[in-house]
Amino acid sequence: MPIDLLLNNGTIVTPDGEFRASVAVDGGKIVAIGSPYSMPPAERVLDLDGLHVLPGFVDAHVHMREPGMTYKEDFLSGTSAAAAGGVTTIFEMPNTLPLVTDEKVLLEKAALLQGKAYVDFCLYGLIVEDNLKELAGMAKAGAIGFKLLLAEVTGGVPRPSNGFIFESFKELAKIGLTVAVHAEDKNVTQYYMEKLKKVTQEPIAHCWARPPIAEEEGIQLLSLFASQAGNKVHLVHTSCGTDLIKAAKATGAKITAETCPQYLVFNEEDMRSKGAVLKINPPVRRREMVQKLVEAVNDGTIDTIGSDHAPHSVEEKTKESIWEASSGCIGVETMVPVMLTLVNRGLLSLSRLVEMGSENPAKIFGIYPKKGAILVGSDADFTIVDMKMEKTIKAEELHSKQKITPFDGFRVKGLPVYTIVRGEIVAERGEIISGPRGRFTKPPLNP
Amino acid sequence: MPIDLLLNNGTIVTPDGEFRASVAVDGGKIVAIGSPYSMPPAERVLDLDGLHVLPGFVDAHVHMREPGMTYKEDFLSGTSAAAAGGVTTIFEMPNTLPLVTDEKVLLEKAALLQGKAYVDFCLYGLIVEDNLKELAGMAKAGAIGFKLLLAEVTGGVPRPSNGFIFESFKELAKIGLTVAVHAEDKNVTQYYMEKLKKVTQEPIAHCWARPPIAEEEGIQLLSLFASQAGNKVHLVHTSCGTDLIKAAKATGAKITAETCPQYLVFNEEDMRSKGAVLKINPPVRRREMVQKLVEAVNDGTIDTIGSDHAPHSVEEKTKESIWEASSGCIGVETMVPVMLTLVNRGLLSLSRLVEMGSENPAKIFGIYPKKGAILVGSDADFTIVDMKMEKTIKAEELHSKQKITPFDGFRVKGLPVYTIVRGEIVAERGEIISGPRGRFTKPPLNP
Amino acid sequence: MPIDLLLNNGTIVTPDGEFRASVAVDGGKIVAIGSPYSMPPAERVLDLDGLHVLPGFVDAHVHMREPGMTYKEDFLSGTSAAAAGGVTTIFEMPNTLPLVTDEKVLLEKAALLQGKAYVDFCLYGLIVEDNLKELAGMAKAGAIGFKLLLAEVTGGVPRPSNGFIFESFKELAKIGLTVAVHAEDKNVTQYYMEKLKKVTQEPIAHCWARPPIAEEEGIQLLSLFASQAGNKVHLVHTSCGTDLIKAAKATGAKITAETCPQYLVFNEEDMRSKGAVLKINPPVRRREMVQKLVEAVNDGTIDTIGSDHAPHSVEEKTKESIWEASSGCIGVETMVPVMLTLVNRGLLSLSRLVEMGSENPAKIFGIYPKKGAILVGSDADFTIVDMKMEKTIKAEELHSKQKITPFDGFRVKGLPVYTIVRGEIVAERGEIISGPRGRFTKPPLNP
Amino acid sequence: MPIDLLLNNGTIVTPDGEFRASVAVDGGKIVAIGSPYSMPPAERVLDLDGLHVLPGFVDAHVHMREPGMTYKEDFLSGTSAAAAGGVTTIFEMPNTLPLVTDEKVLLEKAALLQGKAYVDFCLYGLIVEDNLKELAGMAKAGAIGFKLLLAEVTGGVPRPSNGFIFESFKELAKIGLTVAVHAEDKNVTQYYMEKLKKVTQEPIAHCWARPPIAEEEGIQLLSLFASQAGNKVHLVHTSCGTDLIKAAKATGAKITAETCPQYLVFNEEDMRSKGAVLKINPPVRRREMVQKLVEAVNDGTIDTIGSDHAPHSVEEKTKESIWEASSGCIGVETMVPVMLTLVNRGLLSLSRLVEMGSENPAKIFGIYPKKGAILVGSDADFTIVDMKMEKTIKAEELHSKQKITPFDGFRVKGLPVYTIVRGEIVAERGEIISGPRGRFTKPPLNP
Repeated sequence: MPIDLLLNNGTIVTPDGEFRASVAVDGGKIVAIGSPYSMPPAERVLDLDGLHVLPGFVDAHVHMREPGMTYKEDFLSGTSAAAAGGVTTIFEMPNTLPLVTDEKVLLEKAALLQGKAYVDFCLYGLIVEDNLKELAGMAKAGAIGFKLLLAEVTGGVPRPSNGFIFESFKELAKIGLTVAVHAEDKNVTQYYMEKLKKVTQEPIAHCWARPPIAEEEGIQLLSLFASQAGNKVHLVHTSCGTDLIKAAKATGAKITAETCPQYLVFNEEDMRSKGAVLKINPPVRRREMVQKLVEAVNDGTIDTIGSDHAPHSVEEKTKESIWEASSGCIGVETMVPVMLTLVNRGLLSLSRLVEMGSENPAKIFGIYPKKGAILVGSDADFTIVDMKMEKTIKAEELHSKQKITPFDGFRVKGLPVYTIVRGEIVAERGEIISGPRGRFTKPPLNP
Repeated sequence: MPIDLLLNNGTIVTPDGEFRASVAVDGGKIVAIGSPYSMPPAERVLDLDGLHVLPGFVDAHVHMREPGMTYKEDFLSGTSAAAAGGVTTIFEMPNTLPLVTDEKVLLEKAALLQGKAYVDFCLYGLIVEDNLKELAGMAKAGAIGFKLLLAEVTGGVPRPSNGFIFESFKELAKIGLTVAVHAEDKNVTQYYMEKLKKVTQEPIAHCWARPPIAEEEGIQLLSLFASQAGNKVHLVHTSCGTDLIKAAKATGAKITAETCPQYLVFNEEDMRSKGAVLKINPPVRRREMVQKLVEAVNDGTIDTIGSDHAPHSVEEKTKESIWEASSGCIGVETMVPVMLTLVNRGLLSLSRLVEMGSENPAKIFGIYPKKGAILVGSDADFTIVDMKMEKTIKAEELHSKQKITPFDGFRVKGLPVYTIVRGEIVAERGEIISGPRGRFTKPPLNP
Repeated sequence: MPIDLLLNNGTIVTPDGEFRASVAVDGGKIVAIGSPYSMPPAERVLDLDGLHVLPGFVDAHVHMREPGMTYKEDFLSGTSAAAAGGVTTIFEMPNTLPLVTDEKVLLEKAALLQGKAYVDFCLYGLIVEDNLKELAGMAKAGAIGFKLLLAEVTGGVPRPSNGFIFESFKELAKIGLTVAVHAEDKNVTQYYMEKLKKVTQEPIAHCWARPPIAEEEGIQLLSLFASQAGNKVHLVHTSCGTDLIKAAKATGAKITAETCPQYLVFNEEDMRSKGAVLKINPPVRRREMVQKLVEAVNDGTIDTIGSDHAPHSVEEKTKESIWEASSGCIGVETMVPVMLTLVNRGLLSLSRLVEMGSENPAKIFGIYPKKGAILVGSDADFTIVDMKMEKTIKAEELHSKQKITPFDGFRVKGLPVYTIVRGEIVAERGEIISGPRGRFTKPPLNP
Repeated sequence: MPIDLLLNNGTIVTPDGEFRASVAVDGGKIVAIGSPYSMPPAERVLDLDGLHVLPGFVDAHVHMREPGMTYKEDFLSGTSAAAAGGVTTIFEMPNTLPLVTDEKVLLEKAALLQGKAYVDFCLYGLIVEDNLKELAGMAKAGAIGFKLLLAEVTGGVPRPSNGFIFESFKELAKIGLTVAVHAEDKNVTQYYMEKLKKVTQEPIAHCWARPPIAEEEGIQLLSLFASQAGNKVHLVHTSCGTDLIKAAKATGAKITAETCPQYLVFNEEDMRSKGAVLKINPPVRRREMVQKLVEAVNDGTIDTIGSDHAPHSVEEKTKESIWEASSGCIGVETMVPVMLTLVNRGLLSLSRLVEMGSENPAKIFGIYPKKGAILVGSDADFTIVDMKMEKTIKAEELHSKQKITPFDGFRVKGLPVYTIVRGEIVAERGEIISGPRGRFTKPPLNP
């Protein structure tokens, strides 16, 4: 009996290097990797000569806004953007409404999203002051990990106290799941923001209102707590402070860090031309700091790439005052093309991208090698890319509900050709060609 | 013409060691140090055979409560306690009422206290959210430095935001004065306190409500800010976190640290017997941490000794609930005898005590060698002690207005015999024998 | 057309974990990995149910003594021991006679050994004072790397000077190959040895004559030089000094480290029972240091496992005086069983063993993924093991020419069942079943 | 009865600052420090208005060559140079002939030098391979400390082995005395020297033959040993490697370091104009390294200044080949004027110079506060200087036997006016005005 699908003649890319091989897929799993002539007959054969076969990208950082803020994005639109952009698994953030702060809300959200996902998805629980006793329940319900913010949250939750954070870290050390943290500390930024609001409206002031020290302060705070509590902390959308991260890792603290394409591509000066469209938290940084971040991507200080896909309505993003415009931009659809472009520019290797975009997020959150690997027995998730294809990103062609992005007009080289989730081709050349059959994916019980 | 005073035959103690010599005093200054036979004739001669002559103690950490809370203590009673206890200069904290947050209040406080001091005194300014522009004015008015609290303040001021703190540090780097900081972070302690209040009233819970992590978090926060801003930070009443202090010093950050006798003498277990009388912030620590603190006193990580003299009414200190009792205890009169006792017990050397209790505070705050030294030209401030005299401290014999102290009943060996301020013998064997002629002492303009 | 060989139903072990899969082998290469039903028909099928399939062990540290000292061992006997013991690639040390110090000797040695190897082999060049200009030639001739000794060499070469070593490191940075170093410094040990020789003959004195400081001194010397020269240094048979290695790695120095089974199994006390049979350099260490070494194996400070197979004649090993007995013991045949036993004892995981015994040596010396991996396209080298099989090691049953080992009588649990080199089963259950068809393996020219 | 001498109206300089005061001297000791009007009558009064009174310089690093090489220098000529140059105590190196390697030689040398010294002197013992058992005897005989060389010694002693060095450090930890080490490792330099000798004769090649790595290697070797043995190590004539010293100090190793005026004034380029006259070991360094050394002088990484006064005959210093010329130059007479010049140039403060040139050497070797301090009870040793006086150094005017120096023609600003040893004015304005009454000075028995 023939197997389902044969990916023939592509170049397989792993964190350790590249090699030519075919991949046999059956029942949604990888059943064989090998030379074409050794492969079994298949119902369908894709000839991938000239293309690179990457393990499907795991974007551990998206806000799909459902339920509660579906005018910004919904799960169908958001996951179609993911699929079109070459992402096969997303980790959905918990600051939807109601906030995912207990087991019940998490289970309801999971139920609600069933049937609305074009790619596989995991769900974060949210840590808010005093929901310590809910964490185990959310873990039991299948949370992939937790989110914590030292910054203000879209949704208006107060920043938890440091005392509570330390206690929650001790609890997490027992549960075993990773906490993803927005390290930029509101306790620093609020002061600058209030001062600046009174004196300027220019977009670059957003950067001044959230200076590097706000993120650095948070990073060292979390490092101290993680080091004493023994839990796993994943710093999201890191834009600076990499020396502190390196030092914390050297002491044995279980610290990992994500950055996003926007921090590698843009810098403070771009605020002048792009205005609030590029308003993100943390803000883009000065040119020399971007360079330092690139070094940290290559020396292993930064572990993962995520999109921080954070949609807002066009109206919310184009307020006259930089202070009134919403923070965040879409990115799940552009992440892979932009990163492939950076690979083509020599900023990092394709193998390192696979490590950061696929293997590492899966490992850090405990779903490797089910996700994040091209290994026999792994889910047949692939991002198959053409490293030579070029294109100009156009906001209006994106699949997100709200079509506004700082990458509008950005020329990319390197594009996903097929997005395959558990053996099914979900997207081809940017078009969705299957139904929303993404699954809620839970980490093993004792990670 | 004979000089005013000759201190004959004593053993002079300096941070570098001890030597027998006489000291000649004239016009309030040290005019000569030397062998008795080389000394000029004097109006008065004290024969100090068998006694040690220390540079007068500089207690950089007292709360004399005037104006505004004179039922707890006033300047006359507080400075008489200082004089009786062998302290020749005090640095008065700024959380009196009104709070010393600008130049005008500082000048008024200085004027008010004139004529009420038995020892020389310096005044701190207080850093509160948003008084950035007042700092230079307070410096001009003669502030010895500033006080900042990450903890709640007696007087009810909110903890400043970290953003403001960082900006204030940059301003302090320009002004040049040192900021004394209570590093224990309310953002950590408040969580524990609220939890514990609901479940226990036992005194030791005060220690649990303010765990070491609260102080450590603050220490590393201040170290990061100081290191980036370049200002001088003096951590007061340090009870733990000495590894973090050592690390910060090694990076070149301008960090110094004080501890107090109570952190060296008492530990958590003593809460059981002493109850709220020993309620202080930070709290006393576990026995093994006390041992670590002693090591830090000897290896130079801790730089100074201060009393944190913080009087409250007997009623305030003896509330039934540990949570309602006031934090803080008196100490300016017992500091020197207790520390001399620790010297006699071998905990530290007499030279190290002189360095920590006299030379270092004067240097850190820029009034050395006017204060803190036995050098020709220095103020003739001396604490002349008998290392063999013994006594049991009795609360009711102390000079403070409110006579309640955890040291009640503590047996000391080593007592001040004469306290001399600018050549005048203010106290002899614990009794005040002069009028209140202490002066408001300002640091040089450009420290 | 059927492929050559199918390894069916085994559990594949990689550094990242284990999974059930079959492996298809054709033309000496891995052509497919996958579920049994997806595999092509094969000439021969091995059913490996219940067995673990490991990438073939790469023993980067053996002395086969040919040419020049074939009474101790020769290539046929030595490589048959390797094959019988589950090792598929060996790196032969260059202190054979003539010493491999230039291109010509290396090529002659390679030619001589052709046809005498049961497993694939690589050849080291030797760094001796003043052969700087020969290094590039040896690299061109196919050297896998170089060997350097701070200790005395079997063969009597003087320890090179530090000046020369530093210059050779700079040259190696250009060439790109790794230098394997015996870090124990003769400049330290010689002093102790001469003193002790005069006063004692007891075996444990061998440990005293080569104290940890000798190895630590060498490790930090090499770290400084590597850090300034920028070359790759591999510390062989590391027995201590792991804190120094960790620190060197943290600074970015290209330092890796090997240890050997004997340092994990034996300690100083065993010298009393085993005598000169256990005389090795560096010597076995005190029990608490062995524990520290185990930690370093698990936390990644130690990168690889090698055997340091160093045969001597029984006569040489059994001299009455510990000082006259030769240093070194055989080990290539016992390494895998002993390490599997340590896995069964919980000392390290099987995945970690694969990483240390196979992947890491191949990576460090630039022949990965040809060797050291179970990947499509890699050489079909496998060590297939039965983790449950038990046996007592008997010296007289070993394949080495000289049958004397400290592991005589050691009870192992976990044994190689098949040793497969490039698709050919060379040994089965400890018996050689093929001819000597091992190949001289060179690293790519620009590693 | 009047005292012997009164130093009136000068500015006293200490490591902590400067103050105007008079100093009363009687019986060779300081008996009083104070205001002029409080001073006793004196036989002799020096009015020092406009001059600075420094504690006498303690030059812990001179080679006076007697006995054995008195054609280079002798004790009378060498100590007259010291006195003329403002040095009041010298530490004489032990590589005179016979080498000072045991108690007997040390005592004989002490006896021989009695009556030949214009300044007070201390004697080093020499550590050579295998004189471990002589160290305690030399300490008992009054050695101020020991000298160890990783470099070749004038006198031809072989470099001790590292094993012996480590054992000697353990012995020194018991004895308590400090070992002064020439850290530049012959095991590094010899290689370069032999290579370069064959290809060049140009003076700058001397610098290439002794690259920084030779000194850095030695520094980290000694740091490791000192850190494990617990003894006190003083690195002499440090020219580089200050980052390693800083790191070693941070770990608590008892490491201190000296540099010399020649390393602060000259750089590699000067070899071209000065040739072998500037041949010293370690060699002068590149300009940017000199800058780094200046920073280390100011941040406390370098603790002391010494002259490394190392005379050779003019003939020995002016060989045609740089390789045949002797290493070392005179300096005891020019050290103070050159350093005062650097103070006038703003390179360091006068207080820092006093700390490095007087207080620190005395403290490190255990003779403080007898030497190195202006304190009541200290020896009345003073270097009284005029910071405004200028002069051009002329080799032919120096007091050394062999008049050849790289400082010939160097313009100084700042000169000693009086050199006073135990109350006696030995030199005035560069001229010797007393007899050779210097004393052999021993450290206290249990330092």
